[in-house]
Amino acid sequence: MNTTFLDACLGKPTPYTPVWLMRQAGRYLPEYRATRATAGSFMGLATNKDYATEVTLQPLDRYPLDAAILFSDILTVPDAMGLGLTFAEGEGPRFASVVRDEAAVDKLAVPDMNKLRYVFDAVSSIRKALALRGDKAVPLIGFSGSPWTLACYMVEGKGSDDYRLVKTLMYQRPDLMHRILAINADSVAQYLNAQIDAGAQAVMVFDSWGGVLADGAFQTFSLAYTKRVLAQLKRTGTDGAVVPRLVFTKGGGLWLDEMKDLDCDVLGLDWTMNLGKARAILEAGAGSNKSLQGNIDPNILFANPDQINTEVARVLNSFGKPHADAAKRGTGHVFNLGHGISQFTPPEHVSALVDAVHAHSKAMRG
Amino acid sequence: MNTTFLDACLGKPTPYTPVWLMRQAGRYLPEYRATRATAGSFMGLATNKDYATEVTLQPLDRYPLDAAILFSDILTVPDAMGLGLTFAEGEGPRFASVVRDEAAVDKLAVPDMNKLRYVFDAVSSIRKALALRGDKAVPLIGFSGSPWTLACYMVEGKGSDDYRLVKTLMYQRPDLMHRILAINADSVAQYLNAQIDAGAQAVMVFDSWGGVLADGAFQTFSLAYTKRVLAQLKRTGTDGAVVPRLVFTKGGGLWLDEMKDLDCDVLGLDWTMNLGKARAILEAGAGSNKSLQGNIDPNILFANPDQINTEVARVLNSFGKPHADAAKRGTGHVFNLGHGISQFTPPEHVSALVDAVHAHSKAMRG
Repeated sequence: MNTTFLDACLGKPTPYTPVWLMRQAGRYLPEYRATRATAGSFMGLATNKDYATEVTLQPLDRYPLDAAILFSDILTVPDAMGLGLTFAEGEGPRFASVVRDEAAVDKLAVPDMNKLRYVFDAVSSIRKALALRGDKAVPLIGFSGSPWTLACYMVEGKGSDDYRLVKTLMYQRPDLMHRILAINADSVAQYLNAQIDAGAQAVMVFDSWGGVLADGAFQTFSLAYTKRVLAQLKRTGTDGAVVPRLVFTKGGGLWLDEMKDLDCDVLGLDWTMNLGKARAILEAGAGSNKSLQGNIDPNILFANPDQINTEVARVLNSFGKPHADAAKRGTGHVFNLGHGISQFTPPEHVSALVDAVHAHSKAMRG
Repeated sequence: MNTTFLDACLGKPTPYTPVWLMRQAGRYLPEYRATRATAGSFMGLATNKDYATEVTLQPLDRYPLDAAILFSDILTVPDAMGLGLTFAEGEGPRFASVVRDEAAVDKLAVPDMNKLRYVFDAVSSIRKALALRGDKAVPLIGFSGSPWTLACYMVEGKGSDDYRLVKTLMYQRPDLMHRILAINADSVAQYLNAQIDAGAQAVMVFDSWGGVLADGAFQTFSLAYTKRVLAQLKRTGTDGAVVPRLVFTKGGGLWLDEMKDLDCDVLGLDWTMNLGKARAILEAGAGSNKSLQGNIDPNILFANPDQINTEVARVLNSFGKPHADAAKRGTGHVFNLGHGISQFTPPEHVSALVDAVHAHSKAMRG
C-alpha cells in the first residue's frame, strides 16, 4: 500500500508530499457524470455500494492520487434522523423537514446506524476494491459533516448566504442549539466509528460552515462539539492500525491557535491561510503534534499547466522544508485544495496539479 | 457636532464608543421602503440627491448613531465606466457589460467624474441637511468599493459564490487583471477625492471580497491596489479638517499583520476576528497608529434585547479598556456590525444595540 498519506497525517517523513483533492470523485469527470446518469440521482449513487465504489475509484484511475475518499455526502446523518435529504438538479442539498423550534428539537435523536448501512457497505466494498490494487492501493478516508455544519443545514433546510435562521436560533435559544449539537456530535461519533469498523483508514470532519460564526460563537457552538466527536472516536481500525483524524474548518485559519489543542492528527486549511504561518503556530511552544492539509485555491485549476505548476510550488514552498526526522513526530503536509474541486475544472489540469505536487515536493527533499 | 466618531478614528479618547451600522439606511426601515417605492428603484434613489439625502438621514432620526454614511452603492464607479449597473428586485447588483477579455479591458478607462456628479451632489446635500442639526450633527462618511471588489463584479457581472470567472482571469491573465485594478484604483481615488471636496468628512473603502482571495493573491491583487488608492487621497477636506480613511476587508482578519502598514486610520473587521487579538496585533512593536471598527455579527439583531445587550458587552470587552491618554494616538474603537445589517432586522432591536453600546462603553470608562 502507498502509505504516504497516512504517514504524513501522523507526522512521519515521506518521500514526497501526498496529495488528494476534496470532492475528487465528482462532476468534473465525464465518467462520473455517466455513472450518475445511470444511477438517476446523487442519492441513487451514494446509497448503492457498487455505484459508490465505482465513482470513488474513478479519479484514482486517472491520477496518481495518494488517498481515496468515500463517495458520500456530509448530510447523510440528518437524513438518517428523518429530515429527508434530496439534491435537486443544479441546486444544493435540501431537507424536507427543518428544525427551527423546540417541538422539532424534541423529535431529534441519534439515528439507528442501520439506516446508514449503505454507507458502511460502501466503505467495505471500496476497501475490497482498493485491496486488489496491491502496492498501488491507497488508504480510504471516511468522513462526516461537523455537528455545527449539520445543524446549519438542519435549521436552514438548505444552503444559505447569511445563516440567518440558524444564527437566530443560536442567539435566541442557545439551549436548543446545544441540544441539537449534542445529538449531532454523538451521532457523528457513532457514524465515524462505524465507518472505521467497516474499513475506513482515516476519518475527516468537515466543518464547512464553522467559519461563518463569530469569534466566541465558533468556540462554543462548533469547536466544542467537534471535540465531543473526537473524544468518542476509536483510535484504531479492526486491523489494529492507527486511524488518523482530520478536521477541516473552512475559514478557520484565524482560530488555529485554539484548534491546535484538538485531539486530532491533521488540521485542514482553506487558501486564505499561509501554510508557513500555520506551521509556525503549530510548532510554537511544546512543538507540533499535528499535520496540515491544504490549501491551494481550486480556481487555480482554470489557469494553464505552467501557471498551475508555479502556484503548486508556491504553496509547497510556503509550507517549507518537509520534516525528515523519522525518530519524532513532525508537522506533516498533505497537499489538497482549500475547498472542493469545481465541477467546471478541466480534468487534464488535475493531472498537471498532481504531477506538480509530486515532482516539486520530491525535489524539495533532494 | 458630535465628534466621537472622528475622534475614535484618529485615536483620540472619547467619552463613549461611537457606533454606526453598515447599510444603516436600508430595507429594514419601513420609511426607507416607502421612499424607495416612490423612487421606483435603487438607482432611482441613489441618483436623486433629495431621495439620497432623505434616506441617509432616516436612521439618524430613529437612533442616536454617531455617524452618517452616504446612501449609495459600492459599484457606482464601474457604472460610470459604462458597464450598466442595475438592481433587479430581490437580486443583487448586475452589470449589462462584463470585462472578461483583452478587448473589454482595452475599453476601460478612469471615468469622467461628471458622470458621478449625482453622488457628489448627494454628499453636499446631506452635509447641508446634517448642518441644520447643530450640536447633534454627526460626520458624513463617503465610500467606494475597493479596486479588487469592483473587479469581481466587473468580471463576474453579478455576485458569485465561487468567484470562478474573476479568479480564472486573475490566474490566467494576471497582466489583464493588473490593468483593470490600476484603472479601478485611480478611479476610486478620484471618486473619493471628489466626495471629500463635496463635503465627506471620512472615507471608507469596502473590500467586501478581499477575503475570497488566497494568501499571496490577496496581497498582490487587493491590498496593493487599496494602497494605490490611499496614496492618492487628500488628507483634509475643504474646511481643513483631517479626513480619516477606513478600510474594511471582509474576511481580512488573517492579514491584519500586513494591513497594519496601510496608510489609513481605521481597519474594519468582520465578526470572525477577536477585537482584543486584533488590538494586540496593532499595538505590537512601534505601537498602534490605527483604530478598529466592528465587529458584532448582524444576526445578533434577531435575538432579544437582553441577549443583544450581553453580546454588545462581550464585543466591547473583547476590545478592552478604551484609550484615555489625550496626549498620544491610541487604538480607537468604532462600534459597528461585522457586515451590513440584514433587511429582516426588527428596527426596535437596533435601538437596543445602539443604546447598549453607548451605556456599556460609558460604564467601561467610569
